[in-house]
Amino acid sequence: MSFPAASRLDSAIRRLETLRSCLDWAAIETERRSGPIMEFGLGNGRSYDHLRKRLPGRDIHVFDRRVAAHPDCIPPKHLLWLGDFRTTAPAAVERYAGQVALIHGDVGSGDDAASQALSNELAAFWSELLKDEGILVSDQPIGHPDFALLPLPGGEAGRYYLARRRSRSQPG
Amino acid sequence: MSFPAASRLDSAIRRLETLRSCLDWAAIETERRSGPIMEFGLGNGRSYDHLRKRLPGRDIHVFDRRVAAHPDCIPPKHLLWLGDFRTTAPAAVERYAGQVALIHGDVGSGDDAASQALSNELAAFWSELLKDEGILVSDQPIGHPDFALLPLPGGEAGRYYLARRRSRSQPG
Repeated sequence: MSFPAASRLDSAIRRLETLRSCLDWAAIETERRSGPIMEFGLGNGRSYDHLRKRLPGRDIHVFDRRVAAHPDCIPPKHLLWLGDFRTTAPAAVERYAGQVALIHGDVGSGDDAASQALSNELAAFWSELLKDEGILVSDQPIGHPDFALLPLPGGEAGRYYLARRRSRSQPG
Repeated sequence: MSFPAASRLDSAIRRLETLRSCLDWAAIETERRSGPIMEFGLGNGRSYDHLRKRLPGRDIHVFDRRVAAHPDCIPPKHLLWLGDFRTTAPAAVERYAGQVALIHGDVGSGDDAASQALSNELAAFWSELLKDEGILVSDQPIGHPDFALLPLPGGEAGRYYLARRRSRSQPG
């Protein structure tokens, strides 16, 4: 018997398992580091719910154009940044530059090129927000030079991307 | 360390894994049985794609109010039954009564009570459509007396339901 072809159902399961592996690994890294957590792209709220359950008591700031999440997964108002990422990300930098322990970027839409372009723009703000050695989990490839790519802790390569912000005190 | 609380991400993964277990088991059962396959509720097309990859060459009739699936997962026109299930299901009975090998009912919406009521109504048509010993996979509990419930082949109980249509020649 030949190995059956992967279906969109198989693919969806692998994508969510990869996301969970990345978030679980990032949560362990983040437990021992102070600072807020930020999620760009609330979506249906699944990954927000995962982060708050893995990192209880931590402030998780959520950025999105609008709230379309399950009613159980809506962040408290004072941690919700509504509007275009290109406006809210620089506003967050003004308040939290160099303080953030973990960022989850989940900004992909149906349009691959636009998603990657948006993520590339946001990466500069994410770099400013993260503290040295802070973690970035992203659904888009990470090309910004301030980030050192990390191997995935599990799941399927190319579904999510993991990186650590380089220390500002060390060159290159 | 205590076991971490399940998140909506964990729950989504378990639901899809349970669905896949049921469809994989049903596909093996259906391989050795002739007759068309029917799916009520195309949704994004993931389970349709899974069924056509596990049962290549078989006719898979798809019922839904409208097509909102990924462009890769749209059934051929002659196997697509568009409209209200309460109209298309009886029309399918007129043509395929007692011939169908496998039905996947995925009719749940956000409203649990309405989903269960719809599934209960459709179960009478599914019973008429299925051949003796035909398989029903459903996202709603199956209470119709023509069906014998089966244990899940994997995944989490209560997320999907599996049953075999009783033989018409045997009483109760």
